Amino acid sequence: MTGSLITAREADRALRGRAAAVIPGGVYGHVSAAGLPPQFPQFMRGGRGARVTDVDGNEYVDLMCSYGPVVLGHRHPAVERAAREQAELGDCQNGPAPVFVELAELLVATVGHADWAMFAKNGTDATTMCCTIARAQTGRHKIMVASGAYHGAAPWCTPRPAGVTPADRANLVSYAYNDLESARAAAAACDGELAGVLVTPFRHDAGYDQELVDPEFARGLRAICDQTGAALILDDVRCGFRLHHGSSWEPIGVRPDLSAWSKAIANGYPLAAVLGSEWLREGASRVFVTGSFWFSAVPMAAAIATIGALREENAVEAMARSGEQLRDGILAQAARWGFEVNYTGPVQMPYLTFAGDRRHELASAFAAQALRRGVFVHPRHNWFVSAAMTGADLERALAATDGAFRALREHREG
Amino acid sequence: MTGSLITAREADRALRGRAAAVIPGGVYGHVSAAGLPPQFPQFMRGGRGARVTDVDGNEYVDLMCSYGPVVLGHRHPAVERAAREQAELGDCQNGPAPVFVELAELLVATVGHADWAMFAKNGTDATTMCCTIARAQTGRHKIMVASGAYHGAAPWCTPRPAGVTPADRANLVSYAYNDLESARAAAAACDGELAGVLVTPFRHDAGYDQELVDPEFARGLRAICDQTGAALILDDVRCGFRLHHGSSWEPIGVRPDLSAWSKAIANGYPLAAVLGSEWLREGASRVFVTGSFWFSAVPMAAAIATIGALREENAVEAMARSGEQLRDGILAQAARWGFEVNYTGPVQMPYLTFAGDRRHELASAFAAQALRRGVFVHPRHNWFVSAAMTGADLERALAATDGAFRALREHREG
Repeated sequence: MTGSLITAREADRALRGRAAAVIPGGVYGHVSAAGLPPQFPQFMRGGRGARVTDVDGNEYVDLMCSYGPVVLGHRHPAVERAAREQAELGDCQNGPAPVFVELAELLVATVGHADWAMFAKNGTDATTMCCTIARAQTGRHKIMVASGAYHGAAPWCTPRPAGVTPADRANLVSYAYNDLESARAAAAACDGELAGVLVTPFRHDAGYDQELVDPEFARGLRAICDQTGAALILDDVRCGFRLHHGSSWEPIGVRPDLSAWSKAIANGYPLAAVLGSEWLREGASRVFVTGSFWFSAVPMAAAIATIGALREENAVEAMARSGEQLRDGILAQAARWGFEVNYTGPVQMPYLTFAGDRRHELASAFAAQALRRGVFVHPRHNWFVSAAMTGADLERALAATDGAFRALREHREG
Repeated sequence: MTGSLITAREADRALRGRAAAVIPGGVYGHVSAAGLPPQFPQFMRGGRGARVTDVDGNEYVDLMCSYGPVVLGHRHPAVERAAREQAELGDCQNGPAPVFVELAELLVATVGHADWAMFAKNGTDATTMCCTIARAQTGRHKIMVASGAYHGAAPWCTPRPAGVTPADRANLVSYAYNDLESARAAAAACDGELAGVLVTPFRHDAGYDQELVDPEFARGLRAICDQTGAALILDDVRCGFRLHHGSSWEPIGVRPDLSAWSKAIANGYPLAAVLGSEWLREGASRVFVTGSFWFSAVPMAAAIATIGALREENAVEAMARSGEQLRDGILAQAARWGFEVNYTGPVQMPYLTFAGDRRHELASAFAAQALRRGVFVHPRHNWFVSAAMTGADLERALAATDGAFRALREHREG
């Protein structure tokens, strides 16, 4: 007995067995628990604020936030109310509802570089649309992408090669994140055919220490685009509305031409957006993109409420504050228990690795021990802090991570 | 005064003006009213059953059903209840909810060829996944598609070329719908590289008379796939659950290997699915596909309730019955008013054209006149009948179409 809060795994086990029969690989995609320690639940029941509960009734402080979408906490009252009121009228209809225009106006007023907005469902829809719009506007084909960066799961960008053909990536040219020379070389190799440069606000590749952007590098990409007439495309799908309301590169003063948004934009309701600068409007209006649910009104009403609540609650500052306390607490614990760790990324989206732990064995053991003590963290993916974290949530989270370090120490000595 | 029910367009006009400022082209995609007669509303307020209301308060009998998703009628009580109950627990979480497994089991039990299920958000996600899975399983690259068929709006399939590169379509080989010789020639041209044959249940290309599938053609495609080891992929996104519960080719006895579903699967909640046969399970498990909202529980709960209600209400039969009455009524009206028309497609998804009306001028005038009299139909896209149509709805719809024919006749006679 090591203070475990987990009382049962029967429901989760039964669902895993049934899933294996009717779903290839059981559960697929980023939420698959196949690569996680066996202690992790695969199936979730629900959540409220910063707490989530698995199907066996175990409750955790949520430091994954549904891999990003939940930014104000689960079932935020103002967001749920706005969604419910819109649902009473209509959701998926023969045309958009007034919230379609209201949300576009709000985003244009909120995000520094944006002169117009378009909506979709997946983050992948948004990154793909950015590339298509850049190509339509410039009449060129090449897109520069950072090696190893995640921009979605369509054939042109999915991190796994199964089912992908060379043609799907024939027009991608790679550069190294934060390496301006490599970006300049890639742009030169495009030889007048560069349509856009795709980049994430920081380097948040799964399984690696996170790397903040070097402002010189960001300014260098901006200069490459200005010189070549290509579009600078910021993939703000994962970071958007967690680091800054007006695009995640506002603090360093670099404005993209196109930006892709999703995840946190509607606190968990399904929505994605592309925001663009004036010179790309004509190209954007010629591209044919659509989806059966892209004009649905409920997620747009939720997004308007989310963006309003983020501002009213000073949510970015609240997440930064909680994130700093979490970081300071975990770093102090690591030192106390004698572990050399790297705690990287913005404090709202941190990631913990152990020195020399290349196969994530220590990180996995740590995550499993922390989970048993009531905090949901991930061993190979950045975490997400929400604005719903209370002092009690933080206290419980830090008690769990402290216990996890202690268990690792006892195991090492044991 | 010709019996118009439309009292105002102020709200719609104002929203169009605001949209033009912040959205490229105003409204994009399939719901854009830019190509519709100016009488059509662009913005909708809501709906209930088979009636919808635009932002100016004009009510219509809905024969577009949100371009397909609404199959049981707007705000169907059992579907809304299931969605609300799931929402009270959780929607977008750190992992799927039990409804994920329950829905996969229900689909496998419902759809003839299905041994497994995967979920996504867009119809385009589903058709793209089918191609990727077929490629992963066969190790081949080529996909056969019918010329002019709509399979979604990603670069590989969008009907408009802006922003699309030749590489996006390098592995597509085209054939002509219902022309088995052309399909055989296309398969031969693939020369051992054929991964899959993509086909819609009937030819529902926008702007053309709809064409039911020739069963010989369907069996011929099945034989091509059996002979070459390629996957037969049925794109049931638009037809699924309107023509038959167990895949739209069940009535002709041809089973696909993979099928793509979306639109009507959850009566308007955002969901797509890929269903597959056993031999493709391994390939499907190797493909990496995912989305931030793909595992959200509310649309899955709505889908379970939708499929249950479709069965309980004999919804397919109800749509067929209403569809037949609509067809019989409109054909009798056309004859009475002296118009030669083509009324094509399955009765649940009909399409009306006027003989010799190549530029859709008569069809547009008819749609505008019908709209003014209280029925929402489309001049260039197939219509959709829902199971919510009552006798009163049908009566009102037919009164509107009768008035539209009369107005066209009066205009012609001048």
